[in-house]
Amino acid sequence: MLNLNRIRMKKKEKIKRKTGALLFFILLSMGMFAQDYDISLKEDTLLLEEFVVVGYGTQKKRDMTGAITSVNAKDIRSLTVANAGEALQGRAAGVQVYSSGAPGSNVTIRVRGTGTINDSNPLLVIDGVPTDLPLNAISPEDIASMEILKDASASAIYGSRGANGVVLITTKRGIAGVGTFGFKGVWGVQQVAARPQMLNASQFAALHNEMMANNNQPKNPAFANPESLGAGTNWMGALFDNAFMQNYSLYYSGGNEKSRYYVSGAVLDQQGVVLNTGYKRYTVQFNADSQVKNWLKFSNNLTLNHDVKESGSYNIRETMASLPTQAIYNEDGSFSGPEGRAMWVGDINNPIGKATVNSNTTKGYNLLGNITGEVALYDGLKFKTTGGIQALFYDSRNWAPKYSFRPNAQETSYLGQQYNKSITFLWDNFFTYDKTFNNNQILSVLAGTSAQNNRYDFLRASGTDFANDVTQQMDNSTDNKTNGGNANEWALLSVLGRVNYNYQGKYLATLSIRRDGSSRFGPDNRWGWFPSGSLAWRMSEESFMETMEWIADLKWRVGYGRTGNQNIGNYSFASVYQTGQYTFNGMTVPTVVPQRLPNPGVKWETVEQTNLGLDFSMLRGRIAITLDGYWKNTNDMLVPMSVPVSTGYSDIDVPSINAGKVKNQGVELTVNTQNLTGELEWFTQFNISYNKNKIVSLNDSVPMFTGSIGLNQYLTINAQNHPIGSFYGFVTDGIFQTQQEVDNHALQVAGADAYNRTSPGDVRFRDLNNDGVIDDNDRTYIGNPAPSFIFAMNNTFAWKGFDLSIFLQGVYGNDIYNANAIWQEGMSVAQNQTTKALNRWTGEGTSNTIPRAVFNDPNKNTRVSDRFIEDGSYLRIKNLIFGYTLPKNISGKMKLSTARLYLSCQNLFTFTKYSGFDPEVSVSGIDNNLYPVTRTISGGISIDF
Amino acid sequence: MLNLNRIRMKKKEKIKRKTGALLFFILLSMGMFAQDYDISLKEDTLLLEEFVVVGYGTQKKRDMTGAITSVNAKDIRSLTVANAGEALQGRAAGVQVYSSGAPGSNVTIRVRGTGTINDSNPLLVIDGVPTDLPLNAISPEDIASMEILKDASASAIYGSRGANGVVLITTKRGIAGVGTFGFKGVWGVQQVAARPQMLNASQFAALHNEMMANNNQPKNPAFANPESLGAGTNWMGALFDNAFMQNYSLYYSGGNEKSRYYVSGAVLDQQGVVLNTGYKRYTVQFNADSQVKNWLKFSNNLTLNHDVKESGSYNIRETMASLPTQAIYNEDGSFSGPEGRAMWVGDINNPIGKATVNSNTTKGYNLLGNITGEVALYDGLKFKTTGGIQALFYDSRNWAPKYSFRPNAQETSYLGQQYNKSITFLWDNFFTYDKTFNNNQILSVLAGTSAQNNRYDFLRASGTDFANDVTQQMDNSTDNKTNGGNANEWALLSVLGRVNYNYQGKYLATLSIRRDGSSRFGPDNRWGWFPSGSLAWRMSEESFMETMEWIADLKWRVGYGRTGNQNIGNYSFASVYQTGQYTFNGMTVPTVVPQRLPNPGVKWETVEQTNLGLDFSMLRGRIAITLDGYWKNTNDMLVPMSVPVSTGYSDIDVPSINAGKVKNQGVELTVNTQNLTGELEWFTQFNISYNKNKIVSLNDSVPMFTGSIGLNQYLTINAQNHPIGSFYGFVTDGIFQTQQEVDNHALQVAGADAYNRTSPGDVRFRDLNNDGVIDDNDRTYIGNPAPSFIFAMNNTFAWKGFDLSIFLQGVYGNDIYNANAIWQEGMSVAQNQTTKALNRWTGEGTSNTIPRAVFNDPNKNTRVSDRFIEDGSYLRIKNLIFGYTLPKNISGKMKLSTARLYLSCQNLFTFTKYSGFDPEVSVSGIDNNLYPVTRTISGGISIDF
Repeated sequence: MLNLNRIRMKKKEKIKRKTGALLFFILLSMGMFAQDYDISLKEDTLLLEEFVVVGYGTQKKRDMTGAITSVNAKDIRSLTVANAGEALQGRAAGVQVYSSGAPGSNVTIRVRGTGTINDSNPLLVIDGVPTDLPLNAISPEDIASMEILKDASASAIYGSRGANGVVLITTKRGIAGVGTFGFKGVWGVQQVAARPQMLNASQFAALHNEMMANNNQPKNPAFANPESLGAGTNWMGALFDNAFMQNYSLYYSGGNEKSRYYVSGAVLDQQGVVLNTGYKRYTVQFNADSQVKNWLKFSNNLTLNHDVKESGSYNIRETMASLPTQAIYNEDGSFSGPEGRAMWVGDINNPIGKATVNSNTTKGYNLLGNITGEVALYDGLKFKTTGGIQALFYDSRNWAPKYSFRPNAQETSYLGQQYNKSITFLWDNFFTYDKTFNNNQILSVLAGTSAQNNRYDFLRASGTDFANDVTQQMDNSTDNKTNGGNANEWALLSVLGRVNYNYQGKYLATLSIRRDGSSRFGPDNRWGWFPSGSLAWRMSEESFMETMEWIADLKWRVGYGRTGNQNIGNYSFASVYQTGQYTFNGMTVPTVVPQRLPNPGVKWETVEQTNLGLDFSMLRGRIAITLDGYWKNTNDMLVPMSVPVSTGYSDIDVPSINAGKVKNQGVELTVNTQNLTGELEWFTQFNISYNKNKIVSLNDSVPMFTGSIGLNQYLTINAQNHPIGSFYGFVTDGIFQTQQEVDNHALQVAGADAYNRTSPGDVRFRDLNNDGVIDDNDRTYIGNPAPSFIFAMNNTFAWKGFDLSIFLQGVYGNDIYNANAIWQEGMSVAQNQTTKALNRWTGEGTSNTIPRAVFNDPNKNTRVSDRFIEDGSYLRIKNLIFGYTLPKNISGKMKLSTARLYLSCQNLFTFTKYSGFDPEVSVSGIDNNLYPVTRTISGGISIDF
Repeated sequence: MLNLNRIRMKKKEKIKRKTGALLFFILLSMGMFAQDYDISLKEDTLLLEEFVVVGYGTQKKRDMTGAITSVNAKDIRSLTVANAGEALQGRAAGVQVYSSGAPGSNVTIRVRGTGTINDSNPLLVIDGVPTDLPLNAISPEDIASMEILKDASASAIYGSRGANGVVLITTKRGIAGVGTFGFKGVWGVQQVAARPQMLNASQFAALHNEMMANNNQPKNPAFANPESLGAGTNWMGALFDNAFMQNYSLYYSGGNEKSRYYVSGAVLDQQGVVLNTGYKRYTVQFNADSQVKNWLKFSNNLTLNHDVKESGSYNIRETMASLPTQAIYNEDGSFSGPEGRAMWVGDINNPIGKATVNSNTTKGYNLLGNITGEVALYDGLKFKTTGGIQALFYDSRNWAPKYSFRPNAQETSYLGQQYNKSITFLWDNFFTYDKTFNNNQILSVLAGTSAQNNRYDFLRASGTDFANDVTQQMDNSTDNKTNGGNANEWALLSVLGRVNYNYQGKYLATLSIRRDGSSRFGPDNRWGWFPSGSLAWRMSEESFMETMEWIADLKWRVGYGRTGNQNIGNYSFASVYQTGQYTFNGMTVPTVVPQRLPNPGVKWETVEQTNLGLDFSMLRGRIAITLDGYWKNTNDMLVPMSVPVSTGYSDIDVPSINAGKVKNQGVELTVNTQNLTGELEWFTQFNISYNKNKIVSLNDSVPMFTGSIGLNQYLTINAQNHPIGSFYGFVTDGIFQTQQEVDNHALQVAGADAYNRTSPGDVRFRDLNNDGVIDDNDRTYIGNPAPSFIFAMNNTFAWKGFDLSIFLQGVYGNDIYNANAIWQEGMSVAQNQTTKALNRWTGEGTSNTIPRAVFNDPNKNTRVSDRFIEDGSYLRIKNLIFGYTLPKNISGKMKLSTARLYLSCQNLFTFTKYSGFDPEVSVSGIDNNLYPVTRTISGGISIDF
């Protein structure tokens, strides 16, 4: 394994070769710095000798012709992240990672924008096995490197699964030499960095009185004297708390040329900042390499994982909304509920009570393993066979006891359980041929087959009416017994090949092709070709460049490839029938009814991507720049055959056809600089990416509404010539200050009742079509959830044993729909509001942004509009690490190989205009009751013997 | 690991040291043989240097003080067994193995008799982890050795789980040296060796007519001319067929002092001889040893297993009973059913039809693993910590479509599914100290703790009325939805220690003690002590023996120990409540009712065992004898507090108390001889064991009936002073030949109707109490299912590359209750009969053993009696193996290390008087619809590189 050589080399020679980067203008000044110092060529050479993992093999980083970003173990050490995916955030240009604060939840990754309105997640490959194991199944400590295949010339080797990019995870392996044994312990505290400020009890009561009065409703007598109510209850304070997190890992590793091993075990215990949430993960990794004969080698990887996720039963929005005038507990310690008329108290069932008594748990037991036999046949020709397996067992359990909180008592206890099983087998067979001709041409050929299949089964059951809350077992439910279960399968058979040709290190070419046959494709389109090619020209090797000594490396790259997205559902091509019961002539008979018409021609979505790149390093590698531009066109995107009507809802599940088109194009820049390389080291890594996303065609000019949040309102839309998931709604135009302004404006809400129509203090919406009426035809495109720019910069300093790293990360140009604010700034029902409501309109001239408080919202001030759209841009001090490594002479005396202490802060501070919890709100850009991303302050110790 | 040294030594020096044995008289003549040949001392020495695995460590075989039998890989190679347990059969004196022919089913093992009326299964320990993984989860190819700890001085280290003996399985490990890679393929055919002969159609019709006439019933007009019906349908022929079996295994193994590995994969595909039965097993084994530092070593074992068991939906008894006059299929290809009056045609629903359309499958996904860290602390003192895990996931699925076979159509389709999860964790921590003093005293000390816990969960669901037979998913059931689920847990915490002392190899002592605290014991008895001690005196080392050169070794052993059986259920000490529903005042309310009264004092069953042993070898090891005698007393056996009334049935689940006593005593002899050691080798291994089992006390003199076969009849009884599970019933005394004999005898069945009372041709039962009436009081103890003797002999011959092994195995002195014969020899209903019925009584003097055929059995000829008891003794050619190993000079040329071809026959021939399928009929001795043990003829090839 070439990758091994790389790690070995790094360890053995103990070479520090961090690279750094800054913005262009910093870059230039750095150039001057650099000239003042002694530059060692060694580092430069080694950098170029680095290998990266590519699909089905490894390649010299220097000879890469495609767009691949590699993140290795050193880059992510000392990050206190529960999930390896979080460690990717900001590390690779063009790769956007959306994390979630909920313990045990996974990140969402987008490579070079969102490629389709359907599944846009990149393929995850762990140690060569394409997997649907979540990224958080792996302990970050076990990861040797993560590679992201960004352009099609790199990802086309994954054929019908490469369209959204590919993330390759490689776990650590044993290194021949002295055995090592190590321990790492991390202890941290997580906290919610920012919380929206809510009204206190007296502020709320005052608003409440005003809201009632404006709708001509009776006031709540309990709020007669708002001032007397004081601060009231801090509901959010009861839901959120600082949460402890600990992570321990142990490993041993070593061996020799004949046999090498890496074995580790890790335990993560992450409490959640939200009541009754948390995540525990236990992982074991066994990796081994066995040179059984000089012609026969076996390697195996095995990941065992067990996790327990307490998803809790929280509702953050309802907790924000709970009345500060209501206590959490009654005097007898039971959970309180509101009293009085429904309109005065709202309908929220004590969210702290529900979060306390209900329990929602998922337990997972996962295995991912593979074994590879490699036979050296003849003069560079090798045969490799790999068998892989992924076995996922997970069961969920949702328990709700009966309780009597007002206003809505839970009349009966409930238990729901589901057992799931997903088994995947993989069998790959490859020939590889590596040969150097005439000392200046290198040919590498890969050819083989890959077969993979999966079967998923589940069984679920639920019941109610348990005799008491102790007997939480399904056997003890006595009523409403339900059950269900089903299975589905897919299989993929592939033939693939790749040729790399290298002439004098100057002219490089890579050609790859894959032919995939998938059970998911319709019988008319069962097999697809996925070719790619890329060329690189190392201009710096040309004789005419010889004089330009300051250029260390200059390589132009161009690549094109076609990839597919086969995540189109397992049975899109087939008729789907639903069974039911039908009472016929007084007899109940089972029925089978068609649920969806088939599309036997359904096939993969296709992405055609062209990439132009430049790798440039100067001053003997002190400054290294990578610049890529891409044109990524999605064709054959699956869209419903007859597009739903504009309500966004359709009664029949219509068949989908491969007729949509999406375009993403962008530019990515990575700059790494070694600013100081003496006793004080300073390295900078910088990357920035621009992407522009546009739906080119949906097969039909009628757009598709999406982004329902359960209010019969759709927040987003997919429409031709607009970005995927654009926000769509009304455009606000300030607040009506006078009745005359209302009367002069297009008709918003008419009515005879002065209390139930548009009035001064209400939001003015633009009459876009100038027809004098504000209706659905006045809606337009009001925002884009996808950022134009994503960027990150890491500065690393080292001096003697100390090291400091400051990692900044941000996005620019995206919008967030603050859906929590529909309620929490709507001022139309008896729910608490954010302090923005203090600036509400209370009379002419008092506000031109925040409308009046009015019960029942006669003007529909809360309709989908740009009122709730906020700028989602942020710049974050993503990570700050300060570490100290014991000097060798001291650690040596303690029989230690290395000992390091560090302090780390994840998400230290966020610069943003966004008013919600956190601007990192998922791909959709809709902030609706989301678990906030947390700040984690932690300390760690790592010791190696 | 000392065990490794042993394996290494064997491999490295390539020494053949098979030992052989014969009966005593053969033995003496062998003694003469032996003197004629050159005897090498080397073999002798090596034998004594062998190590055996004992609980929590290994010990020199030579220095053993307890009764342990070791079976190693070489002993079981070339056996074509699907289940490692079958390979144990006959290999160890005192160990009885009951195999079953059903693919995927497990053997039952009894060590030194049945120790309790409750769970008598030995503890299974795989690579140091006590497990409830079935033995067939392991590929027999991966087993390095199996040790059986028989006496309490050996098994007491397993404390409250050692009472039924302990089976230790050790899997193969890597050996430092040249790496090896091997393949083994086995192909075999299984067949039912013997089938009871059934009547053909004309014989059956004749009997049928006679049976009807004797009960004054109308004859079936279809049977008016029996001769014309000919042979009829061969139902058993349709159920049974020769079945193919294949087994492939691959392994690679090797390493060096720093790092060693053994990795293997195996696939077993065993079709069943019964329609729609079969078993598939996939196993992977990863074992590794890593010497990370000179003071730190890690070892790990990991077994992954997946199996699929098709249990089928067969009914062998009903297939025997199906009418030969009825066809299997109707003319349209559908399954036929009987026509005519019910009494003429019986009530059997086409068993071939049911076996064909129903499906019962269990899928298992199992993981058993452990990892051990071992730190050398100081001068012989080591610390070891082991973490182990066992994760079992298995799901069953029972599907029955609706069908319309006569006589009983299945009106609706049915699906039942259950998902199960059982997770066990183990954590052991030990200090060991090994030191030699003054060159003549060796002290070994072990002290530490062990903690283990288990949790089992299941979820089940069932439903009926699927729209069609294709949609076999629970989601598609439309009626009768049920569900259920539950969990249970146990935990065990132990402190244990052992001291071995060896003075000049002459005086040997072992003391061990374990203190177990178990969640299963009542709060009043949570902790128990389990001590043992054993001494050995190697008389042959005494100076007065020096002149007796023909004695190679003579060692006397004596041991005593106390062990426990904690398999008393998880919650015996606690109240068990059942939930239900109760309609109260028109409202359905959930209820909780006590199901069993608690016994808070409940504790383990205790076994006290004394062992006296002798190890004797003479003629420089050419003859080796081991003789053991034991007294094994079970006390505190759990028995119901108030013993059920003599009907054997009790409505309430009464609490159990620790008040029963059982005694087993016996003698075991093993003789191994090396008859010829020249170019032609001939080794013999012989063992014979005698055991006597007796219930000493049941706390109450009223016996407990057991062995129900669902006919309101109990076949067996547990009673004071009788063996466990004795057969209990009437004693037959021939056949009444005349009415006068009936009248002279005690009244059996009275009646006014001459056709419905005891008549000539009926069975005469003895009036044991001479009260003139045959009633329940005339029942007595009529048989013992446990053999007095079990024995086996293996003769191995080797000449040049050829080898031949003949393995005989048998039992003597046990009885079988042929319950199939109740119907198939009962001649009382319209079911087919065995050909024994041809010899039925048809008039005075025609038979004194087989009664008349009479519909409805007025005399109850089929009542529980010695009529159906048969001698269960058998002698079996258990295994015959003929192999050929390619000479080194040829295999070397082919780059092979070894290449071997062999033919093997398992269960070649059985000498027995038993008239059923096979005399190996489970511990209970009741042959009721059992899947027969099969004969397997196979050929194999094994190649090592």
